[in-house]
Amino acid sequence: MKQMIDGHTRLLGVMATPIRHSMSPAMHNAAFEKLGLNNVYLAFEVGNDDLEQAVNSIRVLDMIGVNVSMPNKQKIIPYLDELDISAELNQAVNTVVNNDGYLKGYTTDGVGFVTDLQKKGHPIKNQSIVIAGAGGAGTPIAIQCAMAGAKEIKIFNEQGPHFKNVARNVAIINERTNSNATGEDLNNQTAFKEALASCDIYCDATSVGMSPLQDQSLINHASYFHSDMVVYDVVYSPRETKLMTVAKKAGVKEVYNGLGMMIEQGAAAFKLWTGEEMPVGFIKQTLF
Amino acid sequence: MKQMIDGHTRLLGVMATPIRHSMSPAMHNAAFEKLGLNNVYLAFEVGNDDLEQAVNSIRVLDMIGVNVSMPNKQKIIPYLDELDISAELNQAVNTVVNNDGYLKGYTTDGVGFVTDLQKKGHPIKNQSIVIAGAGGAGTPIAIQCAMAGAKEIKIFNEQGPHFKNVARNVAIINERTNSNATGEDLNNQTAFKEALASCDIYCDATSVGMSPLQDQSLINHASYFHSDMVVYDVVYSPRETKLMTVAKKAGVKEVYNGLGMMIEQGAAAFKLWTGEEMPVGFIKQTLF
Repeated sequence: MKQMIDGHTRLLGVMATPIRHSMSPAMHNAAFEKLGLNNVYLAFEVGNDDLEQAVNSIRVLDMIGVNVSMPNKQKIIPYLDELDISAELNQAVNTVVNNDGYLKGYTTDGVGFVTDLQKKGHPIKNQSIVIAGAGGAGTPIAIQCAMAGAKEIKIFNEQGPHFKNVARNVAIINERTNSNATGEDLNNQTAFKEALASCDIYCDATSVGMSPLQDQSLINHASYFHSDMVVYDVVYSPRETKLMTVAKKAGVKEVYNGLGMMIEQGAAAFKLWTGEEMPVGFIKQTLF
Repeated sequence: MKQMIDGHTRLLGVMATPIRHSMSPAMHNAAFEKLGLNNVYLAFEVGNDDLEQAVNSIRVLDMIGVNVSMPNKQKIIPYLDELDISAELNQAVNTVVNNDGYLKGYTTDGVGFVTDLQKKGHPIKNQSIVIAGAGGAGTPIAIQCAMAGAKEIKIFNEQGPHFKNVARNVAIINERTNSNATGEDLNNQTAFKEALASCDIYCDATSVGMSPLQDQSLINHASYFHSDMVVYDVVYSPRETKLMTVAKKAGVKEVYNGLGMMIEQGAAAFKLWTGEEMPVGFIKQTLF
């Protein structure tokens, strides 16, 4: 039985649009309930135009904190008081912690990826990683892998709106971490195939594989894989993407969707807000 | 079992200070749960300094509405788009309804008093009513009694911060309604006793009887009462005030505390927000 919401209940939420179908409210509220924390987490439809007022509401309603998602991850930065190193390197924020009106921004998406892989038995340290995509998922994944001690990170992206991020992410990683990063056009399939052949972990951080692209995969041939690599798709709806099917057929044993990353990025935010570990096993069992 | 809070859950709340010990969150959340409405109601510590930002948060977080209480009932008026007649006559707001960013203010405290008495078998129409107090409770009670067709309303208040309200409330009632209102200094005990002798309903709308004045009553002598009157104390903690004890000893049969008014003002707000009747019997049984 859910504990009664009372005058002491504190508010959290996610500010994004469209957001009503987000799993985050169900996830965080189930965790609050399980741990007996007197908080509620709601979804707020907020776009760029309302963002400054919405950030003020964090302070004035004494919210514990919020998540932000598209289209606010970059735009929120000027309204915050401080950025954590993860948010500063990403120049993007997905989590805000309110300390008595002082708002600090974090990015936990990359932590979600690294933590999920670590829990699955694949620590990032000294690994060679290939990442397709340099957008809202690929950027924090690349940077967090570098912060976690990856040996090398090879970033591929099509020519398009995110391509400019490739050079930026490569520069940040090479300047600010001990990892070695390179960037390449995804259309250079020779380079892509060569990188995959020698990598430990391949991460598809694009939206290919998710509706309306659910029938597509960036890789369609078994020859791109080798059996002892990890293949990770950040998409988790459907639970098995085209990429995952192709990889499994090619004999790859460690093939994952992005559900664990999604939960772990939430768990990292949960820890920042409450100081407590999200009961991840319980959440997976209850909600997914 | 409480239905899961999800991305579609809408927010309401009360903006006041101090407010964490308010019964309103428990009351409204129990009613939402009972009726299967996907809303949550929280308490927000908001004073005059934060009020304008807090009102903006109603719009930007697309809250269904809020209650406001001390010290914001008057101060909120300039930030709203429209006042209902009840709020306009009171120049005070306890309920705000958000219609897609357009905020309308209402006062439901007086409705709470009138509805509670009506449900107890005492319609206000054509009654003679004596009210002690012209503050945040006494003003809406007097005005709503007048709007509900009371024959006459005799308002008594000590010399003090609320005394200026007496003349204002009397003028509004005489100008804007068909009731006949008079005002008098409470220290004029002859007039007070005379008014009580001929009234149908006496309402103590002061905080006398509530901590730290729980051992006090404005009336201490049986001679002020007659057995067929109604005695109503807006205080509900303690459940039986000194006034109520004195009145019962004097043989008054209809003696009430303010619990019903508190619930009915909430029910009136609930109706404005949701269009539905609050399950008042269930609420009384569950919470009180």
